[in-house]
Amino acid sequence: INTKLPNVATTIFTVMSNMANEYKAINLSQGFPNFETDSKLMNLVTSAMQKGYNQYAPMPGLASLREIIAEKTNALYNSNYHPDTEVTVTSGATQAIFTIISAFINKGDEVIVFKPAYDSYEPSIELFGGNVIPVQLSTPNFTVDWEEVANKITSKTKMMIINTPHNPTGTILSKEDMLKLENLLKGTDIILLSDEVYEHIIFDSQPHQSVARFPGLSERAFITASFGKTFHTTGWKMGYCIAPKELMEEFRKVHQFNVFCSNHPMQYALAEYLKTPDNYLSLPNFYQKKRDLFLSLIKDSKFSYTPASGTYFQLLDYTSITNESDVAFAERLTKEYKIASIPVSVFNLNSQDDKVLRFCFAKTDETLKKAAEILCEI
Amino acid sequence: INTKLPNVATTIFTVMSNMANEYKAINLSQGFPNFETDSKLMNLVTSAMQKGYNQYAPMPGLASLREIIAEKTNALYNSNYHPDTEVTVTSGATQAIFTIISAFINKGDEVIVFKPAYDSYEPSIELFGGNVIPVQLSTPNFTVDWEEVANKITSKTKMMIINTPHNPTGTILSKEDMLKLENLLKGTDIILLSDEVYEHIIFDSQPHQSVARFPGLSERAFITASFGKTFHTTGWKMGYCIAPKELMEEFRKVHQFNVFCSNHPMQYALAEYLKTPDNYLSLPNFYQKKRDLFLSLIKDSKFSYTPASGTYFQLLDYTSITNESDVAFAERLTKEYKIASIPVSVFNLNSQDDKVLRFCFAKTDETLKKAAEILCEI
Ligand SMILES: CSCCC(=O)C(=O)O
Ligand SMILES: CSCCC(=O)C(=O)O
Repeated sequence: INTKLPNVATTIFTVMSNMANEYKAINLSQGFPNFETDSKLMNLVTSAMQKGYNQYAPMPGLASLREIIAEKTNALYNSNYHPDTEVTVTSGATQAIFTIISAFINKGDEVIVFKPAYDSYEPSIELFGGNVIPVQLSTPNFTVDWEEVANKITSKTKMMIINTPHNPTGTILSKEDMLKLENLLKGTDIILLSDEVYEHIIFDSQPHQSVARFPGLSERAFITASFGKTFHTTGWKMGYCIAPKELMEEFRKVHQFNVFCSNHPMQYALAEYLKTPDNYLSLPNFYQKKRDLFLSLIKDSKFSYTPASGTYFQLLDYTSITNESDVAFAERLTKEYKIASIPVSVFNLNSQDDKVLRFCFAKTDETLKKAAEILCEI
Repeated sequence: INTKLPNVATTIFTVMSNMANEYKAINLSQGFPNFETDSKLMNLVTSAMQKGYNQYAPMPGLASLREIIAEKTNALYNSNYHPDTEVTVTSGATQAIFTIISAFINKGDEVIVFKPAYDSYEPSIELFGGNVIPVQLSTPNFTVDWEEVANKITSKTKMMIINTPHNPTGTILSKEDMLKLENLLKGTDIILLSDEVYEHIIFDSQPHQSVARFPGLSERAFITASFGKTFHTTGWKMGYCIAPKELMEEFRKVHQFNVFCSNHPMQYALAEYLKTPDNYLSLPNFYQKKRDLFLSLIKDSKFSYTPASGTYFQLLDYTSITNESDVAFAERLTKEYKIASIPVSVFNLNSQDDKVLRFCFAKTDETLKKAAEILCEI
């Protein structure tokens, strides 16, 4: 058997979650909430099934869901997306990302990816023969050096992938970043993939700088979004993407032969649930409390950190504890201290090891307290 | 924008379902049941959500679901699949098919496809630069000419796609067919993709000749299966695939970056529901009654037919009515007679038009009666 992905093994999320289970460790590795989903949302799924939404949804998604997605996006970001032609519901944001890459990347195309990066981007690019052009975020604060980006753009650059709020670092792009990017891409044919799955998990009253706010970006961009992150339902595998009509047409050509459509009863439930904006507008506050609790509880530990600006992940720097590799240290923490995290080097194509671990704080306060207790003992 | 799929438009299923809605026609085009899903199964989804199965499932699928799939398959087809390494749950069979093709097809690879063929195979092959090598099924009974197949095998043949029971023709492959195929593939590296989504919709007490029954085939094969077809839940987008460990490893490398995993609460519900074999063993009888009702009601119409051996589709030959193209006739039937079907030429890469339309009989008896009344008037 000839493998098309020689460098791909099981994702780190599977590896660490399995290790957490095996060693009965507190699992702050894979990003998912351990608290309950709103029973209102679950009841809506039940009533959707009972109402008979059990057969194929329309290929691009249920009309009422696409409408409220467009409405919400346009209201929040002052954009002008049309629900019929510019919104497609997907089986999770990962499926949207894979499908976008499928639809546009050809052999030899270059894709600029900021590192560390979510682990699905690179193998998806590789599968279609594309070349990843990495740009390392600048430590200590994981900022973008836009001059370096400018230098990496060539005639072969087909796509650039940005991610704000950023997994795994918890940083966000500022308005200034977006304006620089807009300037950089002006006059090029580069497609922008903006992974905004944590759009509603952003702290300290900072606004989410969605690509949808910037006409010079949105005209060339796919935005991917996730209901799993926003409504504590990562296992429902529901998300969507938004793009100008011409780009979305190409997306749908592939989407219809990948999954054809997404889960129908859950689409109905989400459309109803989105009618109450507080269901997502309350999220920054909800997660900021968790971040603040977690950080206050570990402030006397040996770990150092900059508070996450967004996402439900906090990086902790362990240089004052050990100089083990992050992979070795994460493994030891799981096995000996019973707390699982993600070594950030796995988000780096070139395995650069900044001696930081990623901890997910989408957990009950009780779990966060237990976790913090352990972290203070290390 | 350079399109990677220049020949792809919206799928015929979307086109015809939309036309059916617009003209308020009885929709026997796209294949989906119009009757209710078992409330037991829906209740299981509700209780899965309430029990907290709302976060990521394990990447290859919930262990209990993979176990019962392996158990059922091994019991029915006398095979020996291992649930951990040889079964993966997918977001519908279409996603499985797309992912299989993604994982193995490279530029220049040849894939033998029997025509007419389900419409997702070819664009998926094309997307990865593969070449479709069509083999036309022999009319009138849509049988396979294995000598022609043998002649089309070259050193570039990477994959062959079979589909039994067959959509759109309703034919099935016999044991003899499978033995011939086994002989043909012996000593080659050809991967077999066996689309068996209608495995439980097969009539007249004929056994389903799953590839799983034939060691010389299963050793090189992916089998794709669909809960949507079996449990009247096409809109839940749940399916799975089975393959030997070495093939499945490659599949999962792509699967984890395409959808990562499938819907968790629905996986839990399906695992529970599969514990009652009658939930699928009753299906041949259930659908045979529908086929027989439909055919008895149109026996005096001007359409001619061979009863479907499997699937929930019946082909009707209209040569004694008109010599319009099947596309034109299907459109006219929808607009003037208010009954929507699928023109079979769209399942043909080369658009060969055998003057047959495909009607879906996964409908309430009431709908079938109304449809038959119209068909008898034409
Ligand atoms: C798809 S499993 C990974 C979940 C996640 O987004 C993360 O932990 O980074
Ligand atoms: C994915 S929509 C098509 C449903 C189907 O399998 C068919 O009608 O052939």
